[in-house]
Amino acid sequence: MSVKPSLPASVNQTNEVSIPPLPRVMLEPLVRMALLEDLGRAGDLTSDSIIPADVQTTMNLVARQSGVLAGLDLAILAFQLVNENIQLTVHRKDGARLNPGDLIATIKGPAGAILTAERTALNFLGHLSGVATSTASIADAIREFGAKVTCTRKTLPGLRALQKYAVRVGGGSNHRFGLDDAVLIKDNHIAVAGSLREAVLRARAGIGHMVKIELEVDTLEQLAEGLELGVNVILLDNMNPEMLKKAVAMVDGRAITEASGRINAETAPAIAQTGVDLLAVGWITHSVSVFDFGLDAVE
Amino acid sequence: MSVKPSLPASVNQTNEVSIPPLPRVMLEPLVRMALLEDLGRAGDLTSDSIIPADVQTTMNLVARQSGVLAGLDLAILAFQLVNENIQLTVHRKDGARLNPGDLIATIKGPAGAILTAERTALNFLGHLSGVATSTASIADAIREFGAKVTCTRKTLPGLRALQKYAVRVGGGSNHRFGLDDAVLIKDNHIAVAGSLREAVLRARAGIGHMVKIELEVDTLEQLAEGLELGVNVILLDNMNPEMLKKAVAMVDGRAITEASGRINAETAPAIAQTGVDLLAVGWITHSVSVFDFGLDAVE
Amino acid sequence: MSVKPSLPASVNQTNEVSIPPLPRVMLEPLVRMALLEDLGRAGDLTSDSIIPADVQTTMNLVARQSGVLAGLDLAILAFQLVNENIQLTVHRKDGARLNPGDLIATIKGPAGAILTAERTALNFLGHLSGVATSTASIADAIREFGAKVTCTRKTLPGLRALQKYAVRVGGGSNHRFGLDDAVLIKDNHIAVAGSLREAVLRARAGIGHMVKIELEVDTLEQLAEGLELGVNVILLDNMNPEMLKKAVAMVDGRAITEASGRINAETAPAIAQTGVDLLAVGWITHSVSVFDFGLDAVE
Amino acid sequence: MSVKPSLPASVNQTNEVSIPPLPRVMLEPLVRMALLEDLGRAGDLTSDSIIPADVQTTMNLVARQSGVLAGLDLAILAFQLVNENIQLTVHRKDGARLNPGDLIATIKGPAGAILTAERTALNFLGHLSGVATSTASIADAIREFGAKVTCTRKTLPGLRALQKYAVRVGGGSNHRFGLDDAVLIKDNHIAVAGSLREAVLRARAGIGHMVKIELEVDTLEQLAEGLELGVNVILLDNMNPEMLKKAVAMVDGRAITEASGRINAETAPAIAQTGVDLLAVGWITHSVSVFDFGLDAVE
Amino acid sequence: MSVKPSLPASVNQTNEVSIPPLPRVMLEPLVRMALLEDLGRAGDLTSDSIIPADVQTTMNLVARQSGVLAGLDLAILAFQLVNENIQLTVHRKDGARLNPGDLIATIKGPAGAILTAERTALNFLGHLSGVATSTASIADAIREFGAKVTCTRKTLPGLRALQKYAVRVGGGSNHRFGLDDAVLIKDNHIAVAGSLREAVLRARAGIGHMVKIELEVDTLEQLAEGLELGVNVILLDNMNPEMLKKAVAMVDGRAITEASGRINAETAPAIAQTGVDLLAVGWITHSVSVFDFGLDAVE
Amino acid sequence: MSVKPSLPASVNQTNEVSIPPLPRVMLEPLVRMALLEDLGRAGDLTSDSIIPADVQTTMNLVARQSGVLAGLDLAILAFQLVNENIQLTVHRKDGARLNPGDLIATIKGPAGAILTAERTALNFLGHLSGVATSTASIADAIREFGAKVTCTRKTLPGLRALQKYAVRVGGGSNHRFGLDDAVLIKDNHIAVAGSLREAVLRARAGIGHMVKIELEVDTLEQLAEGLELGVNVILLDNMNPEMLKKAVAMVDGRAITEASGRINAETAPAIAQTGVDLLAVGWITHSVSVFDFGLDAVE
Repeated sequence: MSVKPSLPASVNQTNEVSIPPLPRVMLEPLVRMALLEDLGRAGDLTSDSIIPADVQTTMNLVARQSGVLAGLDLAILAFQLVNENIQLTVHRKDGARLNPGDLIATIKGPAGAILTAERTALNFLGHLSGVATSTASIADAIREFGAKVTCTRKTLPGLRALQKYAVRVGGGSNHRFGLDDAVLIKDNHIAVAGSLREAVLRARAGIGHMVKIELEVDTLEQLAEGLELGVNVILLDNMNPEMLKKAVAMVDGRAITEASGRINAETAPAIAQTGVDLLAVGWITHSVSVFDFGLDAVE
Repeated sequence: MSVKPSLPASVNQTNEVSIPPLPRVMLEPLVRMALLEDLGRAGDLTSDSIIPADVQTTMNLVARQSGVLAGLDLAILAFQLVNENIQLTVHRKDGARLNPGDLIATIKGPAGAILTAERTALNFLGHLSGVATSTASIADAIREFGAKVTCTRKTLPGLRALQKYAVRVGGGSNHRFGLDDAVLIKDNHIAVAGSLREAVLRARAGIGHMVKIELEVDTLEQLAEGLELGVNVILLDNMNPEMLKKAVAMVDGRAITEASGRINAETAPAIAQTGVDLLAVGWITHSVSVFDFGLDAVE
Repeated sequence: MSVKPSLPASVNQTNEVSIPPLPRVMLEPLVRMALLEDLGRAGDLTSDSIIPADVQTTMNLVARQSGVLAGLDLAILAFQLVNENIQLTVHRKDGARLNPGDLIATIKGPAGAILTAERTALNFLGHLSGVATSTASIADAIREFGAKVTCTRKTLPGLRALQKYAVRVGGGSNHRFGLDDAVLIKDNHIAVAGSLREAVLRARAGIGHMVKIELEVDTLEQLAEGLELGVNVILLDNMNPEMLKKAVAMVDGRAITEASGRINAETAPAIAQTGVDLLAVGWITHSVSVFDFGLDAVE
Repeated sequence: MSVKPSLPASVNQTNEVSIPPLPRVMLEPLVRMALLEDLGRAGDLTSDSIIPADVQTTMNLVARQSGVLAGLDLAILAFQLVNENIQLTVHRKDGARLNPGDLIATIKGPAGAILTAERTALNFLGHLSGVATSTASIADAIREFGAKVTCTRKTLPGLRALQKYAVRVGGGSNHRFGLDDAVLIKDNHIAVAGSLREAVLRARAGIGHMVKIELEVDTLEQLAEGLELGVNVILLDNMNPEMLKKAVAMVDGRAITEASGRINAETAPAIAQTGVDLLAVGWITHSVSVFDFGLDAVE
Repeated sequence: MSVKPSLPASVNQTNEVSIPPLPRVMLEPLVRMALLEDLGRAGDLTSDSIIPADVQTTMNLVARQSGVLAGLDLAILAFQLVNENIQLTVHRKDGARLNPGDLIATIKGPAGAILTAERTALNFLGHLSGVATSTASIADAIREFGAKVTCTRKTLPGLRALQKYAVRVGGGSNHRFGLDDAVLIKDNHIAVAGSLREAVLRARAGIGHMVKIELEVDTLEQLAEGLELGVNVILLDNMNPEMLKKAVAMVDGRAITEASGRINAETAPAIAQTGVDLLAVGWITHSVSVFDFGLDAVE
Repeated sequence: MSVKPSLPASVNQTNEVSIPPLPRVMLEPLVRMALLEDLGRAGDLTSDSIIPADVQTTMNLVARQSGVLAGLDLAILAFQLVNENIQLTVHRKDGARLNPGDLIATIKGPAGAILTAERTALNFLGHLSGVATSTASIADAIREFGAKVTCTRKTLPGLRALQKYAVRVGGGSNHRFGLDDAVLIKDNHIAVAGSLREAVLRARAGIGHMVKIELEVDTLEQLAEGLELGVNVILLDNMNPEMLKKAVAMVDGRAITEASGRINAETAPAIAQTGVDLLAVGWITHSVSVFDFGLDAVE
């Protein structure tokens, strides 16, 4: 069982960030797919059989833990695609710092339809708020050092755009979105190319001028070679703080530096303190604990 | 950060189960979607620019932790849909109990294509083996009591069929797959219907003869009423072991019993000991820790 | 040519049932697909060339036979997806008992667009009302015996969810929706398993607790064995009324009973009279006669 | 219940036609969709739990009535998309005249997979052979008169291309495939245009040179006007044989003539005898009785 | 670089044609696809980071060259699918003759969203207006001769329906839309059939009564044979004006005549003067120059 | 009519580049879509009716002009998705410099299927080779100056990934693929932000570390400000060679420089001579002339 990275309830609201929402044209196919996955071939047997179509209800969406809200637009779409008569009044927006009991939205409309959409809405909301909260747990811990959390391509199939959005909402920064928008040279590429130098030169020759090159290095010798070749970003893989400090000093502003390997809220400050620009963390997208929301009937 | 539910390395291989695979026609759309999500509009800039098309390689897929393997068919599809010349020799099958270092498959073919498919393959494999391993961590703990772990509808959007498959592979049992294949009556339904009795009667009148009815109860009074109405399954929500024991005694085999609420490998035995048939666990699908695999070049 | 199972015009309106509609998110992809199938690559050559865009019209959708209305939401969607300015006033709802000449809806808007959508709307409406009417022809005949009509998986490719909905609207009950929501053990399964007992035990071991098991039996010996094994539903295949009566007596309430084989409105009462719970009928979905509607210009 | 239009068993095999198959790229999306509709989110619970993966079987696909075979490619695809190890030996081809007991194909491979695909394969095969057989029942009856059966746009949503193919296989001819490949002017168009003449002239001005114009006429006056305007095809709607004869004489080869209205195998010869070129029949696609096939285990 | 076929600025507005729009259900999937192609996995990084969500703007869509407007509905959809709060006031419609500086539409709404949708909107508009303008450049040149421009199947993958629509808007006429709505017999078909006669006879026997047959001929002998066989349309391939004149005389109204081969605005009049009905031109869809539009901020 | 940018026939073959192909998983959906667009609802009426299924043929794919080959994989897929028995022997690869008459591939198999796939195959091949040839016409002209051609987002809807691939094949370099993989700040963004400085700072704050920022400048003052702010790329819009030379001198290697505005093979050398790194050209994707290929029957 995973340990929830819920944030301390007293966290300062000034940490809240405002991240531009993804356009509906990007969200709608995912919400439709998720609803159809749940509705199957017969719809909601339980609500349909028990709840008459004309019963109206009002429910409150509330936080049951502390953390960062993400995915509200998806939840809203889920309700409205099940029944366009469901009205939502939104009290908090994506990026909001939540404490247990916080009221996020009020949902009003046909009771049956609200219960039909509930699980799909919460599945999006819980997962993405989980990503945002996990991200924020590290982002908060390293803010004073000027370093940022960044994500990886270790995402869940089909959910990459959403997870990366939630990372932004949680105060993190996005790494590349796929194999096609940046180069990341790892040991396997170097091995095939024959040398680090050859790998970097081939990459540079093969890409467009809007594409950055990142080089993963294990040693300071590799780092020196990468800097000489002018790569844009250096990935310092699995180095301890001392070595990271040396590496940052060697780089001396000539490249962006990124540390990776076993980073969490406890270990992050020591790493951020070394002066690296970014801390790359895979678990904020591949091992996410759901954020706990409740949908409570209003008396 | 989540705590990995990895299993003890010495676990008895006889626990291995053989679960029928999902047909390729169900897997292929998901793998294509995940590959396109990673390949974007330009494919793999790094491998394409650095690795000549005729370079061949052999890589070993190995476990880096202990647990249960799930999702191998998806990983195979990922490799073969990127390049049909990639050959896989499979050494372990879904359901296999893995220990760190265990060799799962050998992958042979064009080096560039293998690296292109690697992340998509591992994203499926890591997540689904994570689900299977989480499930097994509880299933193992309660096997002696004859109880089973079951999952919920708290799944990740688009991945329900795969996650539920991985639950089976991990030794768990599946709850309903959607709103349309079984009835689950909760407090909100009862509130709208006016009474538990009315809710059950309406449900029974509205469904087909192949559909089961489950009733969530908070009290033994509700339980008595549900039993009298002949519901098929009773969900005993958030009851402590004592109360569960009383409930199981009351039921006396007239319905299947399912316990839910804060269940993990530590708390499960005490719950299973009460005699309930099933332990419903949400986190094995909504808060999954990735299983750690490596793809290592063969010298 | 098929013989229409139209209902007697004098049928009692009190038979009307109110079936929850399928959510629009389930219907919309099917209506879009059907419209595109008819519009092809150039749209409606006839209306587009003959009818100026500003010509308005009002048309009445009327029944031309007696029976049960089903599919109105799909027809409405067809009109509105072709042109959002088409207005529909609905006079009767799905489940309504129709007689020839009954006014179902009034459609008002651009004449060209209405004619463009007409065929798609009527294709859905005619087929689904055909399913509902066929179903009702049997349901009405056996109502006094407390038995229900149920459908099969012998449906038309792509239309299963809609056809099963129309069965409900016609007063029927749904059998399983696919291979994945219930077990139905037939002779082929028993043959491979080696024995009926082995087949049932394997099925029970392999499925979740929300899944029912139905067993098809040809003889009373098989029936006895199935009852002993506690299957949920017994399919009594191709038995004559005498044998059915014996079977029902043997079952004595311990399982749901379902009769199948050459059932229509004439043969149904004798079968229902035996006390079986369900009459399974394939032709109400696989050999459906269209229900005849007209779209008449209002003078 | 519909009355099956099965053909006399002694029908002359020389009637068999060889119709070019639809390319796989057109069939595959439909078969995948139908399989997913049946497999749902868990696959085949019954076969998966009862039949071990290594059990092989051989089954014969046989006709259980007389008629015309159509849809074999779809059935083959259904089996092979479920499991590529299923082998089919084909004994009869689409267009074959079948008698009860005729062996159509032998299917060999994993028993579980064969049973999983069976229903989807038979749903395609039964429906399309039903269309072909219905078509042939009329085509056979009018062959001596040189007239042909043709279909309409009254098809089942999503199945138009397949149904029209089956009409060809049954010896019928295809009418337009949608609103976009030909013009058919009906009374509503004429009413809006103000006159038949104006409707035809507008249509001619608005379409390309590869598009034919058909005009529906109710009277001989309209017919005369249509001929004068040079329309390509005349639809003689609901005329009795006498009137049809007069109409055909008036047309005198200047246009193709098509009769419509309540046509079946019994009424067709009298209509065909009038000399019309085509008999348009809606029920061969909108009210189809399934053709009965069996899948029998080979001892 | 291509030479723009822009029309003379003084062109008479009376040439404007009013072509029925394609229904939204046909356009929407293409616009959604194009938007997602541009938005990728993160949306508009530039506008999202620079422009606050509450900044409103008004922009004018203006022509920067002379020609014919086509595709406005697609542009409107692009804006509204990105943000439903974008308002468009339309000043000119598809088919309008444009001169540089002409105001086509005013777009008002959130500045960021307008800039996000701009490129997708202009890509549709520029391409389709390019098709319409290219078409008009020939259509205008031959109007006095009563001949029409027609298009081919040499279209850009995925854009056929839109390109053919733009041909209509430009004053051209559509040839067949695909392989399935008309027959076009070329030399390869004749070679396989053994003779022109055999090819035509086979085609006629194999098609429905709403399908026309066109025959491509290289010589007057072939033409004579085709006329005798009664084909509907004759394609006179790559003939010079003298030979075309002879061909038209031979045809003498018994078939529609179509000339093809190296036709542009300069060569068209001499060809049209020969009396052929249609001039088939591939480049208006396969080698289209974009029409230049600007989106200018309103001060 | 567009003027084809065909290359001189004597062009040196050493210019040929080898560009990694796009994986089949990216190509297949586009080829399937294009085939279905052409096959419609009935397939190839002409070949199906005229050519018996067992007629085999061999055809040569030959160039009819000079230029650069691109899109062969798509053409191969088109043939094989129509009929898997079509065999292709490939003589030249994407990137090959072609002269009129050059043999590219030999296609062998069922004659009807080859003719059915021909147009779709040629539509892909002709368009993409047109893009590659257009690109090469400029790339060749500026090679000696070390500058590169780059493309824009002015692409045809749905074809961006393919067009950008063809640009690479033609010796060009890719600009960003969408709104989501790089920042390009234009005058509208600056206007809303209030100042160039503010726009750049906001962009930098809002993006990930793998994303480059390009700034469009109209004046040398803006250029100076952009350089000071450290943007990665400078777009020098519509500057004449003198001004470009000054700009390049000012930049002095601190950023990548890109010139845009009315660039073709004639004007390119003077621009490249100024020392800019890249010449951005829209027409190589938005105004492409098809490359002329022939499919000739082998005697």
